[in-house]
Amino acid sequence: MKNILKYIGKVLIGFSLILLLPIFVALVYHETIKGFIIPLIISLFLGLILNNLKISKKNLYAKDGFIIVALSWIIISILSAIPFMITHHVTFVNAFFEAVSGLTTTGATIFSDVESLNKSILFWRSFTHFLGGMGVLAFVMAIIPLSRSDKSMHVLKAEMPGPSVAKLVPSLKKTLFYLYFIYLSLTLIEIILLLIGGLDVFNSILVSFSTAGTGGFAPLNTSLSTFPIFNQYVVAIFMFLFGINFNIYFLILMKNIKTALKSEELRTYLIIFICSVLIIFLNSYHLFNNLFEAFTNTFFHTSSIISSTGFSIGDINILPTTSRIILICLMLISACAGSTCGGFKITRLIIVFKTIKRDFLKLVHPNSVYTITYEDKKVDEDTIKNTCTFMFLYFLLILLIMFIVSFDGYSLETTINAVAATFANVGLCFNISDFYNFSSLSKITLSIGMLLGRLEIFPIIVLFTNLRLKK
Amino acid sequence: MKNILKYIGKVLIGFSLILLLPIFVALVYHETIKGFIIPLIISLFLGLILNNLKISKKNLYAKDGFIIVALSWIIISILSAIPFMITHHVTFVNAFFEAVSGLTTTGATIFSDVESLNKSILFWRSFTHFLGGMGVLAFVMAIIPLSRSDKSMHVLKAEMPGPSVAKLVPSLKKTLFYLYFIYLSLTLIEIILLLIGGLDVFNSILVSFSTAGTGGFAPLNTSLSTFPIFNQYVVAIFMFLFGINFNIYFLILMKNIKTALKSEELRTYLIIFICSVLIIFLNSYHLFNNLFEAFTNTFFHTSSIISSTGFSIGDINILPTTSRIILICLMLISACAGSTCGGFKITRLIIVFKTIKRDFLKLVHPNSVYTITYEDKKVDEDTIKNTCTFMFLYFLLILLIMFIVSFDGYSLETTINAVAATFANVGLCFNISDFYNFSSLSKITLSIGMLLGRLEIFPIIVLFTNLRLKK
Repeated sequence: MKNILKYIGKVLIGFSLILLLPIFVALVYHETIKGFIIPLIISLFLGLILNNLKISKKNLYAKDGFIIVALSWIIISILSAIPFMITHHVTFVNAFFEAVSGLTTTGATIFSDVESLNKSILFWRSFTHFLGGMGVLAFVMAIIPLSRSDKSMHVLKAEMPGPSVAKLVPSLKKTLFYLYFIYLSLTLIEIILLLIGGLDVFNSILVSFSTAGTGGFAPLNTSLSTFPIFNQYVVAIFMFLFGINFNIYFLILMKNIKTALKSEELRTYLIIFICSVLIIFLNSYHLFNNLFEAFTNTFFHTSSIISSTGFSIGDINILPTTSRIILICLMLISACAGSTCGGFKITRLIIVFKTIKRDFLKLVHPNSVYTITYEDKKVDEDTIKNTCTFMFLYFLLILLIMFIVSFDGYSLETTINAVAATFANVGLCFNISDFYNFSSLSKITLSIGMLLGRLEIFPIIVLFTNLRLKK
Repeated sequence: MKNILKYIGKVLIGFSLILLLPIFVALVYHETIKGFIIPLIISLFLGLILNNLKISKKNLYAKDGFIIVALSWIIISILSAIPFMITHHVTFVNAFFEAVSGLTTTGATIFSDVESLNKSILFWRSFTHFLGGMGVLAFVMAIIPLSRSDKSMHVLKAEMPGPSVAKLVPSLKKTLFYLYFIYLSLTLIEIILLLIGGLDVFNSILVSFSTAGTGGFAPLNTSLSTFPIFNQYVVAIFMFLFGINFNIYFLILMKNIKTALKSEELRTYLIIFICSVLIIFLNSYHLFNNLFEAFTNTFFHTSSIISSTGFSIGDINILPTTSRIILICLMLISACAGSTCGGFKITRLIIVFKTIKRDFLKLVHPNSVYTITYEDKKVDEDTIKNTCTFMFLYFLLILLIMFIVSFDGYSLETTINAVAATFANVGLCFNISDFYNFSSLSKITLSIGMLLGRLEIFPIIVLFTNLRLKK
């Protein structure tokens, strides 16, 4: 236990340093810094105490890794809520929802008028996306000298998005270096393109942060609907790009483009995306002024939802039922593993489909032998089993959260939507523009849902089952 | 192939004899018999031709069994549609929907005014429930002298409701005899109780037929809402009873009540039922005139939906979102295997939950060994795998059907409802009272869905994949 707390101490020290950034923004815009100073002092103080703990054993097990990740996310979410509470006087539940929504890169907001918020708070919202995107912990991992031990992979395993983060390079530090290099480069390119498109520096940075984390917090009340067409396409394309497995970019960096393009996941992602755009376009083009507007809207919103970002450039409530079904499915599936997306991930979808096919064929031809391959490698039975278990848990939790949120009395459609949008870390939701009117119980439940979705369920459950055993 | 056709010939001969029953009813009520005579002649003629086919090989494989079952259901559905077309001049699509809904014991209707229908047609609707309830094929199995060969179990395997029909007694014929004895006895007791409650003979028989098959076609426009309270409780209790695994009744018949009461499935069924009634009652009692009325409605509708029957005694559209979510979940889960219910079945639910628990524990404690037991027996990995595959296919098909039905432009909630109600063979649906206004494409898709749900997916898929291979 002391071992776990010591790591959390390191995380907190790292987090306190991060808080210097919004303080800098607040100083530039002559805004109050109190909201950021208080969590900075708390996290630095707590971090130093925990980091000074004497530890007896050195080994960290997978379980400990899960607990560190889960606890860190919860503590950092609470600390990240403080700026909202102090600067704009929102209740703890609302501030916690906003902070969790930010860190988990969901982008569901409780503010109906974001333009009235302080610049530093707007920066903080988008920056939590950027931070959460690659995982607060993966970030902290880079500054904690943990990489010498193989055990650190356990922590990373719980933190990294997606079921199959291939070890790109043997050393953890190097892996993180490459991941961050790709992440930062893509963000920078987007910022530059948005600037070229005529957006100001502040909004370009904020929108790019939100895109990179596939979050969706926008600095404007109408999301990106007032942006020039060029910038809307830039964001649409970058949302799509941030949905691609970072391994692909790494392979491209290594000039191994052939292998990159052969990726089953990438191809499936593309096929799903193109088919969805096509069907939604055919289903909804008559609702727009012209075909170009229809295409822009379809392309943007499909990209926004499949990448679990949640930006919008128009009213999605006009869409017919078929389009809604597709978009809700895209929410739940989401994009590639090893990206900053939430949701179930395409890798898992492929494995599940192949398993169904195999088991079905086995039923018809019991004596034949079928092997499941993915990306040219044989998938072992443990992976198949874990993927299936994950799927059950995924939908079970959605159902459970839906049940609790349904007490609020929203229609079934809105309830499903709100839960899918938060659990899959999308944030964009039919029928409601912000989550302010949900009950406190619903907001807390949805917050837990966002964390469960973001951390891919297991760490949070391990945390709570462990706590129960300890009593 | 000839082998398969020969069996279908036997099925058709059996079916032609069954058609004598509605003809008798039509004669009693001085109604036209033309609607029943035509399918009788067709099925007898076709049956005799196919039955005279010379067959080369004697062996029947699981695959053949699946194909016989799937083809028989489709052919008999088409023949059962003819009476509706001839007597009440409805289109083929509507008649087919009604026939499939009857035979699959769904109870979703295309008639908005059933009281205007001929008595013989009303009888036919409820009788298709009764017939379908235990499976047209299982019925025919009793008259086809197949039982001498073990291979016949293949056909039965595809036909019998639920994943785990224990061989009650070694001989197939004896098994069927006991099953039918229980089925007929329960139906008879219900008829007698309804008569005691003051219902006339015709309606008592029809309602009991519909209850036995867990169908839901009612002879009155307002389902059972005008029935006396006593009769409503009789039907509610019998719907619940027909949701119990028939093995339990067999054990009780054998005076092995202790084993019967120890059944995990029975206990889970009871717990799910009681919890659902409790939650729905608490969630909706304020919407009724008094607590007794609230309880009667809750008890009746929960029983009606968990058993996949679909009778109603009042407006279910007044129910709040939480109750709706529970009822839709109950639709999809349904009651015990080895009963006449549709849906996913509680047996599978238990196995899935135990698998999730096991795989989750394994993730936390990788070195421990966990075995899944069900009803005090170890569950082998093949069963687990098949159950999981079935679950995926189940929800995948629901999604696919939803996608097609969504073209009609009903709201997302209505679309989900309509698909769940038909696929799980429930028939009762929020927001719509009959399916007349759906498009032909939707009606055919929903009909296929009802067949897929009723035959537990595999036979129909085998049929079509096989046909594709043959081309």
